[in-house]
Amino acid sequence: MRILGVDTAVRCTGVGAIETAGQRACAIEYGCIRNAPGLSLSGCLQSLYTEMRGWIERIEPDEIAIEGVFFCRNVKTAMSLGHARGAVIAACGDVQAPIHEYSPRRVKQAVCGFGAAGKDQVTRMIVQLLALPRSPAADAADALALAVCHWHASRGIQAMDSRI
Amino acid sequence: MRILGVDTAVRCTGVGAIETAGQRACAIEYGCIRNAPGLSLSGCLQSLYTEMRGWIERIEPDEIAIEGVFFCRNVKTAMSLGHARGAVIAACGDVQAPIHEYSPRRVKQAVCGFGAAGKDQVTRMIVQLLALPRSPAADAADALALAVCHWHASRGIQAMDSRI
Repeated sequence: MRILGVDTAVRCTGVGAIETAGQRACAIEYGCIRNAPGLSLSGCLQSLYTEMRGWIERIEPDEIAIEGVFFCRNVKTAMSLGHARGAVIAACGDVQAPIHEYSPRRVKQAVCGFGAAGKDQVTRMIVQLLALPRSPAADAADALALAVCHWHASRGIQAMDSRI
Repeated sequence: MRILGVDTAVRCTGVGAIETAGQRACAIEYGCIRNAPGLSLSGCLQSLYTEMRGWIERIEPDEIAIEGVFFCRNVKTAMSLGHARGAVIAACGDVQAPIHEYSPRRVKQAVCGFGAAGKDQVTRMIVQLLALPRSPAADAADALALAVCHWHASRGIQAMDSRI
């Protein structure tokens, strides 16, 4: 099964794909979609959509895992995250792969064993779990962690959060 | 000048295009992009993106006006609106037309003369201003009102809100 994890944000979106077979998983491709600081919001969202379409076409995922926003106190943050998620989800919309959402806490629990793990710990565990040759960028590691989290959930090791 | 107004929402997005020349304006095309109640979020956003691309290609707007979200108390509402705006703004991203944002109050002021006008009043004024043969759906009327609001702002009749 091919799982594509996406950690969405307007300026830097992490993307990571894994291939799983039974109890084994390996990383296929991972990286970040970065937008230059001066680029307009419309430029950022259009590039995010186009880059995501590229990932979808290359990877042909069976399942997609994105970060769910279950708690967000700030309206401005929610709107900004909503913009990035809108462009990413629209790009994933015409593939048959179902999209699942996981909270950051659930992802950390799946990868590190506890929900309050730090970013460094997530990256270190992802390097170990997927036997990566070197540390990926933090956002790419988060995307791979989302994919690993969904892999665990699909094997019944942990509960699924929600499907959108 | 061709102005495309877009009143974004996940389930029903109003779209309206006007052609302006000096002090005159007429409606070119207007309608709603509707998503069926049972459609998944990803299905809705993908259809919103695709339909918007169609509008952009048909109309070839010089300027685009969308509803700005300057006040939104509810995080859930902000996220939902953000999703729809993300798909719409991504669809507008590769055209050269700049995107302007106007608050609902500013739009009502431009069309009806006062910011607290009701939906019915906006629709009635849009029918009159653009000499429409019949009343459009409320969301399409709001989209045309956004276009009219931007037309006024570009002629210096009122101030612009912001450009994104």
